[in-house]
Amino acid sequence: MPRYAMQVEYHGAPFAGWQRQADQPSVQGAIETALSKLQPGEHTIAAAGRTDAGVHALAQVAHCDMDKEWDPFRLSEALNFQLKPAPVAITACARVDDDWHARFSAMERRYLFRLLMRRAPATHQAGLVWQVKHDLDELAMQEGANRLLGNHDFTTFRSSICQAASPQKTLDELRIERVETYSGPEIHFHVRARSFLHNQVRSFVGTLERVGAGAWDPDDVTAALEARDRAACGPVCPPQGLYLAGVTYPTDVFTGL
Amino acid sequence: MPRYAMQVEYHGAPFAGWQRQADQPSVQGAIETALSKLQPGEHTIAAAGRTDAGVHALAQVAHCDMDKEWDPFRLSEALNFQLKPAPVAITACARVDDDWHARFSAMERRYLFRLLMRRAPATHQAGLVWQVKHDLDELAMQEGANRLLGNHDFTTFRSSICQAASPQKTLDELRIERVETYSGPEIHFHVRARSFLHNQVRSFVGTLERVGAGAWDPDDVTAALEARDRAACGPVCPPQGLYLAGVTYPTDVFTGL
Repeated sequence: MPRYAMQVEYHGAPFAGWQRQADQPSVQGAIETALSKLQPGEHTIAAAGRTDAGVHALAQVAHCDMDKEWDPFRLSEALNFQLKPAPVAITACARVDDDWHARFSAMERRYLFRLLMRRAPATHQAGLVWQVKHDLDELAMQEGANRLLGNHDFTTFRSSICQAASPQKTLDELRIERVETYSGPEIHFHVRARSFLHNQVRSFVGTLERVGAGAWDPDDVTAALEARDRAACGPVCPPQGLYLAGVTYPTDVFTGL
Repeated sequence: MPRYAMQVEYHGAPFAGWQRQADQPSVQGAIETALSKLQPGEHTIAAAGRTDAGVHALAQVAHCDMDKEWDPFRLSEALNFQLKPAPVAITACARVDDDWHARFSAMERRYLFRLLMRRAPATHQAGLVWQVKHDLDELAMQEGANRLLGNHDFTTFRSSICQAASPQKTLDELRIERVETYSGPEIHFHVRARSFLHNQVRSFVGTLERVGAGAWDPDDVTAALEARDRAACGPVCPPQGLYLAGVTYPTDVFTGL
């Protein structure tokens, strides 16, 4: 059965998350239903990261197995046709080896978090950013973020329902960028690691927002990390600013590079 | 009666346009209804530009007259509270002279048009851009755009229902910018003039898209302009990429500069 990797963009709002559920809409369910229009029967796809309800993706990666050979571009076009009007788009598709696995072959996940700083309610970007009404000090936030880099026990930044075997993870990047947009100034968090704990990025962002607001200082971030205690975390921020931004594999299956 | 200028941002999708209509939702109607919650009775507000159905604003400017004095910031906060959940936000508010008029005092209007170039359907930016599936040559588009600058009879680029007294207008800027976004490459059109004819920006964009696609060359734009004939226009593009981006007055009433 030929296997295909799919790069997937989606708007998280209408979905209870990536993972298929019996009675709620999911991104996985939407794609599997679209696949069943192309090839009748049950389909089960696997993804690099299981995003939570309301979380978006710029470039989730999943794979599917088909009975017959498809031209990858035609497969993506057929899926996009079947997916309409759901806000899910296959932005790239490639034939991969049978033992290639969207989740287990992944070497690194990247997340983006968008935080909009302005007083008036967001209109165009509502649902696509987390909005705070005050300005934030991005230099202090970067100093706080730097305390989290490297290999640590991230128990403080892990939700109580996290199923990971160990709280020990290596954070490779947590870069804070101030971006002027048509809707006002945003802080973008660029986060990169081999893998993440449940709610880890939202726990980081909620904590670093407190640093940017001046309520915490960077040393408080170090103390929270070293406490290895969920209660030491800052407030976990809401999901709608979070995007799964990309997944790295030994070879980029979509470009061959 | 004290007069207040309001800077207004809105998402055009749920509205039949700026202008109040008896039986359809409008941005003007939404703000007038919000005003009636603050001060019972009829309100009639005036705006710098009457945007069409589906057209957005980043910074429309309107004015209202109130019975009593309001702190401008408190007025904007009260309106934003009353406007919820409509995607309309008062992003600035200022006390102005009684003879200041959002429409008649305006010296210049600025529009932004966002055009997304990619194959897969837009998800996060659906409804906020005009999407075409092919790449466009922005240098050719800029060359075509330059043919439209200055004072001309713009009959070719004017809708048949335009109510302006004369088709003669001066176009001060039509700048083409290629912008890389999280959703893919976009072309942004930055357009500036004292005033515009009905559908003028969308007629420009639809025509210049043909130049960017290679179907027209810049000389065809000159010929279309000189024809002074609506039939010579390229296809008028859809409204959802268009934003009223700003209005210029002799003094910036929101900053006092």
